Amino acid sequence: MTYCVAMNLADGLVLVSDSRTNAGVDHIASFRKLYTFGMPGERVIMLQTAGNLATSQAVINLLRLRLHGETQNLLNVPSLFEAARLVGETLREVTAYDAAAAASSGIDMSCSFLLTGQIRGEPTGLFNIYPQGNFIAATTDTPYFQVGESKYGKPIIDRALRYDSELEQALRCALISFDSTIRSNLSVGMPLDVLVYRRDTLVLPQGYRVAENDPYFEEIREQWSNGLRSLLAGLSVAPDFYLD
Amino acid sequence: MTYCVAMNLADGLVLVSDSRTNAGVDHIASFRKLYTFGMPGERVIMLQTAGNLATSQAVINLLRLRLHGETQNLLNVPSLFEAARLVGETLREVTAYDAAAAASSGIDMSCSFLLTGQIRGEPTGLFNIYPQGNFIAATTDTPYFQVGESKYGKPIIDRALRYDSELEQALRCALISFDSTIRSNLSVGMPLDVLVYRRDTLVLPQGYRVAENDPYFEEIREQWSNGLRSLLAGLSVAPDFYLD
Repeated sequence: MTYCVAMNLADGLVLVSDSRTNAGVDHIASFRKLYTFGMPGERVIMLQTAGNLATSQAVINLLRLRLHGETQNLLNVPSLFEAARLVGETLREVTAYDAAAAASSGIDMSCSFLLTGQIRGEPTGLFNIYPQGNFIAATTDTPYFQVGESKYGKPIIDRALRYDSELEQALRCALISFDSTIRSNLSVGMPLDVLVYRRDTLVLPQGYRVAENDPYFEEIREQWSNGLRSLLAGLSVAPDFYLD
Repeated sequence: MTYCVAMNLADGLVLVSDSRTNAGVDHIASFRKLYTFGMPGERVIMLQTAGNLATSQAVINLLRLRLHGETQNLLNVPSLFEAARLVGETLREVTAYDAAAAASSGIDMSCSFLLTGQIRGEPTGLFNIYPQGNFIAATTDTPYFQVGESKYGKPIIDRALRYDSELEQALRCALISFDSTIRSNLSVGMPLDVLVYRRDTLVLPQGYRVAENDPYFEEIREQWSNGLRSLLAGLSVAPDFYLD
């Protein structure tokens, strides 16, 4: 399993992905699940994935192989909508290629993608591409999407994130969402890949990898944990009739 | 869907269940999902259920019908372990009775139970009874179980609950766990059934039903929501290299 979150906000994009791919007893491994495509000054496109790693890697490889051909690819599509369509079509191609093997083995080979980015002349965008290859776009009302093991970390984002949240505050919210998920679910694990894109810069950010024992992440995890406990302890005491 | 939590603590038991049974568009309904059995001064047994309502109601009805017979029943089994076995066996009986219809329709008719209580001479106990009829018992290390839509509300319990937590504080923690779940998932809804049992009293508590707009629940929801936002806002600011 995995957990990825992407936020499309007034000031830009915030992406965080974990890198745990399989939490079975013998096969815990780390793979980067955040992929970037770009032409400085013209476009940035980022993909995060959750689900079957063979499928998602095949999709990414095909997308990359085709970057330098004549046909439609992630570096020449005129809009993010068409970029999302292209990823969806490539996912359908891989799924069809593997369909017989998937059916006979009973293995779930499906995967999902979050596509984010900006193409010059367009606002930033965020798309959630389903295993079926169709997709939805984020809106100002729902400015974020999650894929993978999303439930543990959803409440804090639902409470705290707004379209006009500052990027740095949104990043903190995303990191806390990961903290909650990692504490409650073994299949999501460090390191985390963080990427913050400021609107209209049109340059791929460097990104940051949050490793185990990262001092800042440790610091806010502890602040959060202590803060939650005192917050809970400070809530009004339940009336007696609740306990009778 | 539904969400139920039960905690077996040093001072007694804390139970909270929602009452939403089906969040499909046309069939949102409320049913009590907390059932009690007892003989004052001798035993109290509580059951919470999640999953198929027809199955869980059939199990409860059979358990009730058999209360006054000669055979083993919830009012004469000598231990909570045997009570959990009896519930598991009755669940297997109902599942077998419905198996052909379930298989041909493809409908998931499974359900789970949380069994809590105390029988004189024994400590309090908590069992998680799986759809297969087998079960596990809570321990001092893991003093709580959830059934149903459990992920949204798990992080706060993992952080805040300990075996020696006071009942009133544990109840607050459970209520906040429900608040997180209700905010993030439509299929879990009010009213909530709350039941707090103090160890060794051996009398069924009256319980309390938390209705929509319950003043205390509204109060702590708001305290929690505001507190979380200021906690998040007060975390250390992310270093610049996180955002580059």
